[in-house]
Amino acid sequence: MQKPADGRKRVVIESVEPEIDAGRYPIKRIIGDAVRVEADAFADGHDHVAARLLFRFDGVPEWASVPMVPLGNDRWRAEFPVSRIGEYLYTVAGWIDHFDTWRSDLEKRIAAGQDIRVDLLNGALLVEQAAERAGQDDSDDLRRWAAQVRAVDDVAAAQTAALDFALASLMAQYLDPAMETRYERELRVTVDREKARYSAWYEMFPRSTGPEPGRHGTFRDCEARLDYIARLGFDVLYLPPIHPIGSAFRKGKNNSTTAEPGEMGSPWAIGAREGGHTAIHAELGTLDDFHHLLRAAAGKGIELAIDIAFQCSPDHPWVTQHPAWFKHRADGTIQYAENPPKKYQDIYPLDFESSDWQGLWDALRDVFLSWIERGVRIFRVDNPHTKAFPFWEWCIAEIKRDHPDALFLAEAFTRPRVMQRLAKLGFSQSYTYFTWRNTKQELTEYFTELTRTRVLEYMRPNLWPNTPDILHETLQIGGRPAFISRIVLAATLGPNYGIYGPAYELLENKPLRPGSEEYLNSEKYEIRDWDLNAPQSIAGVIATINRARHENPALHANHDLFFHPADNPYLIAYSKASADGGNHVLTVVNLDFFHTQSGWVTLDLDRLELRPEESFQVFDQLTGARYLWQGPRNYIELSPQRIPAHIFRVLRKVRSEKDFDYYQ
Amino acid sequence: MQKPADGRKRVVIESVEPEIDAGRYPIKRIIGDAVRVEADAFADGHDHVAARLLFRFDGVPEWASVPMVPLGNDRWRAEFPVSRIGEYLYTVAGWIDHFDTWRSDLEKRIAAGQDIRVDLLNGALLVEQAAERAGQDDSDDLRRWAAQVRAVDDVAAAQTAALDFALASLMAQYLDPAMETRYERELRVTVDREKARYSAWYEMFPRSTGPEPGRHGTFRDCEARLDYIARLGFDVLYLPPIHPIGSAFRKGKNNSTTAEPGEMGSPWAIGAREGGHTAIHAELGTLDDFHHLLRAAAGKGIELAIDIAFQCSPDHPWVTQHPAWFKHRADGTIQYAENPPKKYQDIYPLDFESSDWQGLWDALRDVFLSWIERGVRIFRVDNPHTKAFPFWEWCIAEIKRDHPDALFLAEAFTRPRVMQRLAKLGFSQSYTYFTWRNTKQELTEYFTELTRTRVLEYMRPNLWPNTPDILHETLQIGGRPAFISRIVLAATLGPNYGIYGPAYELLENKPLRPGSEEYLNSEKYEIRDWDLNAPQSIAGVIATINRARHENPALHANHDLFFHPADNPYLIAYSKASADGGNHVLTVVNLDFFHTQSGWVTLDLDRLELRPEESFQVFDQLTGARYLWQGPRNYIELSPQRIPAHIFRVLRKVRSEKDFDYYQ
Repeated sequence: MQKPADGRKRVVIESVEPEIDAGRYPIKRIIGDAVRVEADAFADGHDHVAARLLFRFDGVPEWASVPMVPLGNDRWRAEFPVSRIGEYLYTVAGWIDHFDTWRSDLEKRIAAGQDIRVDLLNGALLVEQAAERAGQDDSDDLRRWAAQVRAVDDVAAAQTAALDFALASLMAQYLDPAMETRYERELRVTVDREKARYSAWYEMFPRSTGPEPGRHGTFRDCEARLDYIARLGFDVLYLPPIHPIGSAFRKGKNNSTTAEPGEMGSPWAIGAREGGHTAIHAELGTLDDFHHLLRAAAGKGIELAIDIAFQCSPDHPWVTQHPAWFKHRADGTIQYAENPPKKYQDIYPLDFESSDWQGLWDALRDVFLSWIERGVRIFRVDNPHTKAFPFWEWCIAEIKRDHPDALFLAEAFTRPRVMQRLAKLGFSQSYTYFTWRNTKQELTEYFTELTRTRVLEYMRPNLWPNTPDILHETLQIGGRPAFISRIVLAATLGPNYGIYGPAYELLENKPLRPGSEEYLNSEKYEIRDWDLNAPQSIAGVIATINRARHENPALHANHDLFFHPADNPYLIAYSKASADGGNHVLTVVNLDFFHTQSGWVTLDLDRLELRPEESFQVFDQLTGARYLWQGPRNYIELSPQRIPAHIFRVLRKVRSEKDFDYYQ
Repeated sequence: MQKPADGRKRVVIESVEPEIDAGRYPIKRIIGDAVRVEADAFADGHDHVAARLLFRFDGVPEWASVPMVPLGNDRWRAEFPVSRIGEYLYTVAGWIDHFDTWRSDLEKRIAAGQDIRVDLLNGALLVEQAAERAGQDDSDDLRRWAAQVRAVDDVAAAQTAALDFALASLMAQYLDPAMETRYERELRVTVDREKARYSAWYEMFPRSTGPEPGRHGTFRDCEARLDYIARLGFDVLYLPPIHPIGSAFRKGKNNSTTAEPGEMGSPWAIGAREGGHTAIHAELGTLDDFHHLLRAAAGKGIELAIDIAFQCSPDHPWVTQHPAWFKHRADGTIQYAENPPKKYQDIYPLDFESSDWQGLWDALRDVFLSWIERGVRIFRVDNPHTKAFPFWEWCIAEIKRDHPDALFLAEAFTRPRVMQRLAKLGFSQSYTYFTWRNTKQELTEYFTELTRTRVLEYMRPNLWPNTPDILHETLQIGGRPAFISRIVLAATLGPNYGIYGPAYELLENKPLRPGSEEYLNSEKYEIRDWDLNAPQSIAGVIATINRARHENPALHANHDLFFHPADNPYLIAYSKASADGGNHVLTVVNLDFFHTQSGWVTLDLDRLELRPEESFQVFDQLTGARYLWQGPRNYIELSPQRIPAHIFRVLRKVRSEKDFDYYQ
């Protein structure tokens, strides 16, 4: 075996966290975050070790560094701020700190009354060696210090100089770079803008925004809906595909295999004679109209997200222009989508094993780029798990290189490893199993997995209580209480969440047939006429929920989600804190949509930064009610007939009810 | 971002286990083991995936492979045998299995009564492509199959051919190598001979083996002790350093700083005019005597281990020959060992930051090689944690390259990360904290950490209830019951264990002073006269314990150590099984050395491969007692006055007491 280049590097750096798959993938943060890094750093023997966290923005050649602090048991910690969107790199370096070792030994010798003259000379030598490494100013300083330590004729004075903190802190800056051990990998952080971690989505079919029943909605009609969406408190408006819809094998109402004349088909059957993924469906308006909508939305604090579904109707221009991008059957026809024995003749999947895979990749990337050029920065990607993984890694990196503000939501409902992989490869947000997690145990286990494992570092859940494809049984049977409970859960368990409206706020709950999760008369295949002023609308409750999110920074992240035990299995309680600890929110939800449930919640007071002897106020952000509590055990009673949830802001340092507003 | 070389490789291989620090270090196994490997393997979409485990002996260029079996949730498993000592490599490969996907779709189409003629043609194409990749014979075979599948005029016959298992298994051999995804790392296994994992050590000072009180023992005297050691059942005889002892600053009895004339000093003060680490202390005998002892021991099934302590007395030849290998103080003197304010002037540490570190490394390696040349293969390495880590990695690899049967026991009593690091770097066995783990909770937690985490893959504990440096309080106060309990724990919790004798079997328990862990009148500094026939000797019990180990393969490994709950905090119960499941041992120990303790043990019957309705026999390997038990809850009563432990062999399929020996 070869000897290493320098066998005298005695420090070991191991187990750096966070690290995803040996550094193969970046962790994710948002701008303004502090990235906390821990590592094991140690050496043989008893010499003291110094460790530093190194970091730099990708492209900046020099590392910045910050000293790491020992936590005990050879574990060290430090953090660095990320102040730009893009990629940062970090790693850890360690040294034997000979001076610190010497200094600490010297103190012990002095305490034992030993003769320290030779030791002082040893130390002076260390200071002189550091002087060689230092810049001019510090070098002179260090030489002066060395002379004082070396002057052992006056041992007391030399000792005082030797132990001076100013010398110690100067010496800490000049550890010998030749003896540095660098962790063997450089790890990466993808830093996104804030919306990557905190966003509220509203999905809406433009086709159903027309001013009168049955008339196809336009981008202009969507504009008229913006005030309503802003009042509800959403900040992302997500539109299903806005491209020309194919006519070959077009689907009719309720997914019937033949469309009647005049039926408009599914917007996911992308592509017609007029164009494909970069064209706009003529009935929605022009590119100018689209731009107008984009700007109008921005003016109301709403960002547009579009749907990118990489599949083609048989009428898509690519089918004839690029036959190599599609799989061909033995009879020469193009392979349509299948899930045998089911056939989806209206859709041609793209063939990622195409001999022209490079041309295909370029074309798909260019679809994103064309919409970025038109001002879009948020993409909800349809079924990314049916496209090759290497494509996504390359495509997202390509786009983010020049447009680091671009965000990608992965709509993958599939097995956990696949969903996690897509997040690792660069997707900014991910759909989840939330829709199918309904009981207290299901929710607790799933969100513990999402927030207490490494998954938290790279996967940002976006929680949807419904989508145009999923009307879950809870909503079909649970009525208004179910709709409110589920949106409270989504909005408080997920800093990112969304609803498909107006179906949601209007409590639309009719399935295609019993046992189905498809909506009856789904907007995917027809125009729906929604009465936004219908009496059952929970728009007001939703606006209140979104206001609570807005006003409570604790709900903008998920790093410390904690479930507090409740003695009633229908009551689920959990809290979050803001990064600065200044805001704590405790949410309690009744998961029984039919009966009032009550019980005792046992709070972990440490999590809420409360002391057992102190009373505190919980202030319900949904109803405005306030309660004065003390200690861990507190009573909860939630009626589905009223509001089946509390979103409590926890206010500490409340001495008595005289602190309440109404006393003032 | 660059596109990958071939973006069509769609399979992902992740989370391969076992893997230590991203493959930086090997796992450890012994010859004859099966190495079980798991990995996540999956792809986009719905295509079937095939995964294979690849493995090869280091130096053999071709990979062997074995198909992996899906465990669900994208996890796969396979194992490979290691039949040679040395290093093996392993990794994982994955493919889209187009034929298997097609075959499974075909079955669904047939079940749905669809026209499958075009599908059959698609499949024939896949078979023809495989024929291109196959060797001549299989290629012809595959072409014949393809022709049959292609003959769709007789759909029934073509279908029968298409679904033939013979075709499927042939196709599985010809996955397209161009589309293979290989896991990005090749992982390593160090394969040792069996003694690396299963050994019983007896440490003995040759100086105290003389035939009459006060006379310095010799290698010849050690030979006379071999029968005794063999009767006790130990298979490794470990001798403290056998080199010339320095006279400068020689330690006297009980570690006094000045030796009286005639005192012999510590064997760890290595080196004198006569020589250093490759020389033999004259009073022990000659090199021939050493060889004679080595051979005589081997004849009795005992392997000699020697102590390698890399430190020098001031009289060591290296001090004058290689001054650069030692640190110098500012006054020109050589730096002696220190732990300020304590000074150890009789020892000079080696300086691993020496400018001549390369020369030093070579010399230290040559110490091992010289003893290997003399026939030694087991080295107990003294304080490896005070020597630079990179040295150990290089040195052990250097030696094992030519002598893969060499074994190294790391005597590092220090912080966990440091001990783990030494194991990762190549030490075959490691001292542990066992000596200081005495209560049920301490033992359970510690051995759960050692056997239920990744540590199990690279660190082989060697458990010592005592050493010449450590007479733990439990032994000082607990008397005979403590000595028996602790050795039962060591011998059953650790496939590797050892004692320092004859101090142990003679129940030597006097500390240097109250509160000290040092022995009074330690053999480290003087000759001790042991009466092996003293009435208190527990040699017979130890022989029984070692026989129980020998006869029960369950006690030769630690992979499935499991703690069964007992309702009495002084009773600890745990079981192990042999790799083939043919041998189960349940050990129960009373940790109270003063009182009889009784209680109920609740067995996890699954772990013991027992059914709740079946009775079973437990056969005490220490006393020969047998009990008939049924179900999980069983009564235990252990008296420290008799034998404070059970080592039960669990015998299944016992129908009644008529199966007992005494009925036959």
